[in-house]
Amino acid sequence: MKDVAARAGVGLKTVSRVVNGEPGVTVETERRVQEAIDSLGFRRNDSARVLRKGRTASIGLVLEDLADPFYGPLSRAVEEVARAHGALLINGSSAEDPEREQELALALCARRVDGLIVIPAGDDHRYLEPEIKAGVATVFVDRPAGRIDADAVLSDSFGGSRAGVAHLIAHGHRRIGFIGDQPRIHTATERLRGYRTAMEDAELPVAPSWVALGSTAPEAVRDAVVDMVAGPEPVTALFAGNNRVTVTALRALADHQQRIALVGFDDLELADLLHITVIAQDAAALGRTAAERLFRRLDGIDDRPAQVTLKTTLIPRGSGEIPPGTIH
Amino acid sequence: MKDVAARAGVGLKTVSRVVNGEPGVTVETERRVQEAIDSLGFRRNDSARVLRKGRTASIGLVLEDLADPFYGPLSRAVEEVARAHGALLINGSSAEDPEREQELALALCARRVDGLIVIPAGDDHRYLEPEIKAGVATVFVDRPAGRIDADAVLSDSFGGSRAGVAHLIAHGHRRIGFIGDQPRIHTATERLRGYRTAMEDAELPVAPSWVALGSTAPEAVRDAVVDMVAGPEPVTALFAGNNRVTVTALRALADHQQRIALVGFDDLELADLLHITVIAQDAAALGRTAAERLFRRLDGIDDRPAQVTLKTTLIPRGSGEIPPGTIH
Repeated sequence: MKDVAARAGVGLKTVSRVVNGEPGVTVETERRVQEAIDSLGFRRNDSARVLRKGRTASIGLVLEDLADPFYGPLSRAVEEVARAHGALLINGSSAEDPEREQELALALCARRVDGLIVIPAGDDHRYLEPEIKAGVATVFVDRPAGRIDADAVLSDSFGGSRAGVAHLIAHGHRRIGFIGDQPRIHTATERLRGYRTAMEDAELPVAPSWVALGSTAPEAVRDAVVDMVAGPEPVTALFAGNNRVTVTALRALADHQQRIALVGFDDLELADLLHITVIAQDAAALGRTAAERLFRRLDGIDDRPAQVTLKTTLIPRGSGEIPPGTIH
Repeated sequence: MKDVAARAGVGLKTVSRVVNGEPGVTVETERRVQEAIDSLGFRRNDSARVLRKGRTASIGLVLEDLADPFYGPLSRAVEEVARAHGALLINGSSAEDPEREQELALALCARRVDGLIVIPAGDDHRYLEPEIKAGVATVFVDRPAGRIDADAVLSDSFGGSRAGVAHLIAHGHRRIGFIGDQPRIHTATERLRGYRTAMEDAELPVAPSWVALGSTAPEAVRDAVVDMVAGPEPVTALFAGNNRVTVTALRALADHQQRIALVGFDDLELADLLHITVIAQDAAALGRTAAERLFRRLDGIDDRPAQVTLKTTLIPRGSGEIPPGTIH
């Protein structure tokens, strides 16, 4: 504020009046103060950030992958809430690279976004602490923040997977495989925990060869599927940890002689026509809830950071109801 | 430049030196000039725009719908090119509303993006003329600009549709329906023209009831499909004008007793497993080509505005090869 006052050639009290929208300031003085704020803000003066009221708001959205169809409805929902608040959406993706996430989040802060919605790739977000302290409202979505206390809006990965695997068990399966994303990704470990809990609930053992965590690139998933259905203790059912896994697993199973039951986490377009049983997340509700939480903070409502978990829905369509031992 | 000189308390020549990176200016003077530029720029002074060199670049992307899977790979490709140039991507969607497109494009300009990539919803872009004159590089993609001369990167909608309909004719079809988007959308009319041309090439008449243009909302497409397959001159094949139409047409045809051949414009995830024959566009190439063109302009290469048309690919997978009169 001292810098702003000096630059505008006015006293500290006048700056405070302009910032808080109090009367007793001429239009010309207000203009000078606002220009000083803008000008100083451009040089990344963090104390100026708090002063930026009255400008067009913008919020940043750090996605994992712009091309993953899961993030389409999520982005659209964030945009709708931003639009209702007259704010622009600035987005980019980390490509599941923690360094790129950090680089992008800080670049958005340097562009002076008012708030950030982050789908984290990394598990250490202490790099955002100075920004959050400087007033950048921040909400994590899909996965929680690591090593800082921040808002998070999540789907019930654990409960959803547990219900999906219990569904396969209820249809007679005893040997069930789990294919999921890298274990450093929160949703991947939560979904694995749901799988293990459902197996334990039914007092079923889990062979090590039935669990594959790692890259969800097509070749890796295809290898995992082949190993599980052709091994010494072949599975009769698969739980796919996300939509990327489901798509590849379906292709890998298409010409397998035994019909393998499948439940996938995440819904997919055309899954109805392919009769794929899924645990559906509400991607739009995730985006909407996160954005609404962000704008509450931008409106000055200073709740304690909290974690909101949204329920998932089991949609039976055929693939999860195939009994063990069915031939094509 | 006069305003900048006055604000910084220097002569015009000094401003010109700073802007052009010429020697003979002290660090302190350069800083003052740069601050004056930034500060004036914040107030939407168009003449200041041309001066903004050396800042982090950002480009705006105006999409039609953030949740349409067609735009996922396109956005990702634009982001990759922007990232390679150290620029941020700011995006939003028009929801196919020309007014919203204009509002968003101008809001991005007000946020001082260096360039704009626009998938236009409207057909009159004269509102962008002052921005383009002021130096905002602008490239249209997927559909051309209306009433202004600007770069456009398009898919060969006409040629792709003509090839797709010719493919159906080659498989014995004589009564072929066309379902497409609103006629004010350039791609919709181009694809209709491709359909009509293929029918003419084969000297086949087109009954008025075989063509439906309008909303691609599920109810509208479903009604169109039902009318075409159950009318007095029922079609034996359908050409779907885009991926939204294909998805609904597939659902509407799933329990029809006659098997109706189908070719869809745009590829779809899982289309391979559903054996859907498509005319595929290269969405990533569209985004990449448009972004590269934009950065050429930002690098100062001042070509005449041009239209680039990318080829489409026919991918036969089964649905387009069903002969007329096949029963489920």
